[in-house]
Amino acid sequence: MNSLSDRIQLAHGRGGRLSLSLINDEIVPRFGKGPLDGLPDAATLGSISGDIVFSTDSYVVSPYKFSGGNIGNLAVHGTVNDIFVSGGSAKWLSIGLILEEGFPMSELQLILDSIKSSADECEVKIVTGDTKVVNKGQCDGIYINSAGIGEKIKEFNLSKSRLAEGDAIIVSGNVGDHGMAILSAREGVNMENGPVSDTASVRSLVLSICQCASKVKFMRDPTRGGVAAVLNEIVSGTKLGAALDSRKIPVSNGAGALAEILGIDILNVACEGRMILICDRCVADNILSVWKSFPEGVNASIMGYINNEAQRVILKTVTGGSRLVDLPAGELLPRIC
Amino acid sequence: MNSLSDRIQLAHGRGGRLSLSLINDEIVPRFGKGPLDGLPDAATLGSISGDIVFSTDSYVVSPYKFSGGNIGNLAVHGTVNDIFVSGGSAKWLSIGLILEEGFPMSELQLILDSIKSSADECEVKIVTGDTKVVNKGQCDGIYINSAGIGEKIKEFNLSKSRLAEGDAIIVSGNVGDHGMAILSAREGVNMENGPVSDTASVRSLVLSICQCASKVKFMRDPTRGGVAAVLNEIVSGTKLGAALDSRKIPVSNGAGALAEILGIDILNVACEGRMILICDRCVADNILSVWKSFPEGVNASIMGYINNEAQRVILKTVTGGSRLVDLPAGELLPRIC
Repeated sequence: MNSLSDRIQLAHGRGGRLSLSLINDEIVPRFGKGPLDGLPDAATLGSISGDIVFSTDSYVVSPYKFSGGNIGNLAVHGTVNDIFVSGGSAKWLSIGLILEEGFPMSELQLILDSIKSSADECEVKIVTGDTKVVNKGQCDGIYINSAGIGEKIKEFNLSKSRLAEGDAIIVSGNVGDHGMAILSAREGVNMENGPVSDTASVRSLVLSICQCASKVKFMRDPTRGGVAAVLNEIVSGTKLGAALDSRKIPVSNGAGALAEILGIDILNVACEGRMILICDRCVADNILSVWKSFPEGVNASIMGYINNEAQRVILKTVTGGSRLVDLPAGELLPRIC
Repeated sequence: MNSLSDRIQLAHGRGGRLSLSLINDEIVPRFGKGPLDGLPDAATLGSISGDIVFSTDSYVVSPYKFSGGNIGNLAVHGTVNDIFVSGGSAKWLSIGLILEEGFPMSELQLILDSIKSSADECEVKIVTGDTKVVNKGQCDGIYINSAGIGEKIKEFNLSKSRLAEGDAIIVSGNVGDHGMAILSAREGVNMENGPVSDTASVRSLVLSICQCASKVKFMRDPTRGGVAAVLNEIVSGTKLGAALDSRKIPVSNGAGALAEILGIDILNVACEGRMILICDRCVADNILSVWKSFPEGVNASIMGYINNEAQRVILKTVTGGSRLVDLPAGELLPRIC
């Protein structure tokens, strides 16, 4: 390779020969021909019988590589997880790349490899996409949008309106690992056993509990804003509140130590491979034991219960006190996904 | 409004209170509640019986406003058109915003209004979305991704493999208006009757020809790379070529004059509301007369025919000569969409 072809040029996004070679050399070999064959402007897919579940997210994480993954993994897991926690089974993804002129081709290849391996793991197909290139200084290397189509899983009937006092709040694993891994990469923190992103799919966790799905009332992945944002959003505008027990909130040593050093509330920090589930108390232990049989659910925990303290999320601290878990008003940790 | 709330802040993309107020004040009122109600991570939509057609594009046009529209119109029309020219009827769109810190709120409102009005015109619903904010200097104001879901229109059976010598090549309107309007806005060219973007939906044009759809073999919107890129892509790898008659290629005065002054080949310049259709010669006049009854098809023209000059696109010039219409190798006009 000469130095020019080592880096992304504006012409890679221009629709001419270089665009075609990028697609033919890097996209088609990875994502197979299938719906991408003939490079149509749109993919014609099969039909699905159930309701369609549709989601999108743009990923602008900084830096784009971090302990545990890169922006490519996030772009797949984030959108796939949004579909699964909405009670859909993700099937097809689109990938839209915005690349900065001069971005190293080798880095793009690494990210495309991550997109491919994450999609394979989640059993979703990348079926359509788009590449744009912007001038140097008008993007931070790479931004990715993914949109996904899934099929509604009939067993789930999720609705905030079904929540009731006494429902159990389960978290599927350690809280805040992703956000702390990003912060660590961004600030160049060099810790032994430092935080590692939890970027992963929640597919198996959701599919594993279909037999008690009717008792599951709400699922959400705590990304931007963390556990605090999800729980505040749930109780906002309702007559319900939530009580969490800090001893029951799983936190890894690496993320916990770094958060403590920096004075960050781990409940505000994003995960990218965890989910919060709220269910009738009678199935909580059952779900917990099913989840604990998966590597991604080994630290799952019933971290609290829904109560009738309207619109308040309260944390019982280790010392026996209690404090309000509020929605962060402003900037805590930007660009974590 | 105070000066802080006049502009986008990093916290608008952080998942906290400012994110919620942006969604509740600007997104929900425009795009209705419907699937956006309760702001789920994914929209649960109805089912559709036919095959699913799925497309995505990211929009990074510079400048984001131009004569005839803005990036919001493009984000709707571009993805909707990709679905229609693929033989699908577009139904649902996602919108992913990437905003630069400091971007004026009033400009965002203008763009969201354009997204809303374009979506209404095309009869598509915005059902899910996402907003990210990046630091000043890491985006050129605003980038938008849209992804769309459509339902395959049964009557169409589009395939390059059905193309044959003698097929007619129809263009639905003036060529190159969009690209020249962008260039004009970018360079601050001040022409009387200068080029105006053709950004529009091809929905009516596609739906109007369903009764002769079986004789339609190929449709495509000539965006990046213009008419030249589409026709070269069609003949590449086949035993077919294309002959165009320059007198039959509709060009507006504004775009034509500016292209001539600048020495730009208008066939390389993008449209955002036109389509190229290739059909059996026997239905060409019929399609032409149907299209001419629509305002957006009034300048439609049979601009040439498929021939057996393998992989060559030839233009018969006004003076009676002929020249090869090649795929541009490198950068001609970046960031036109």
